[in-house]
Amino acid sequence: MKSLQIILALMLTQATVQIAIAQEKGQMVRLAKLVIDSARLEDYKAFLKEEIETSLRIEPGVLTLYAVSEKQKPTHITILEIYRDVDAYKAHIQTPHFLKYKTGTVTMVKSLELAETVPLVPEARVNQKKNRKK
Amino acid sequence: MKSLQIILALMLTQATVQIAIAQEKGQMVRLAKLVIDSARLEDYKAFLKEEIETSLRIEPGVLTLYAVSEKQKPTHITILEIYRDVDAYKAHIQTPHFLKYKTGTVTMVKSLELAETVPLVPEARVNQKKNRKK
Repeated sequence: MKSLQIILALMLTQATVQIAIAQEKGQMVRLAKLVIDSARLEDYKAFLKEEIETSLRIEPGVLTLYAVSEKQKPTHITILEIYRDVDAYKAHIQTPHFLKYKTGTVTMVKSLELAETVPLVPEARVNQKKNRKK
Repeated sequence: MKSLQIILALMLTQATVQIAIAQEKGQMVRLAKLVIDSARLEDYKAFLKEEIETSLRIEPGVLTLYAVSEKQKPTHITILEIYRDVDAYKAHIQTPHFLKYKTGTVTMVKSLELAETVPLVPEARVNQKKNRKK
């Protein structure tokens, strides 16, 4: 009876650890808010467009990169970023296409705010790989 | 010969008008940026969640409503809104579920900024109806 209790306790512990790992490995959802030097806005957008298209095409862990420019303030760019998990994000920022964008635009970016977020309706999934138009 | 020229000119005019209408009828992509009264944040989120889920379920013209709360500033809510066209948006704001949300939360919203935007990679579609997980 004692050994059954120990086995049950061990099973419970293992289950708890697995749940914790699953949460840790959940989607990473972020808003990047940038202000770009107006004189270099078109150059910046060309860099970002190429980086987004390449990431969405070849990185399965990059679920969404949706960038918008505000009509009234075109130098204000917001990017909704969704990564499958933290590991996918870590891999993303080491890719050649990300590094090309980052180093190529560093002098164009006047400010950058990265806001980690919690999605309100996480199941309203955005731009899953398998659903994207070819 | 003269009448052929007139016919061609009329055809060209019609084609131009149709292109203009097509552009006018394009997707409407917007960022809603809200700050919510911290004492009413949970109530607000419940209203918004219901409104988003209902809109995505029953309005074919509402392509995306993706709302996030910032981890460092939970009262700061951003919603990426994509409507099929302006008509879909006009229909949306007259639905009972939108009006319930709008009137129900009016005293909870400390500030609201609606920024019309231009998507950088419009073909990176977000949360199309036909692709949504059931």
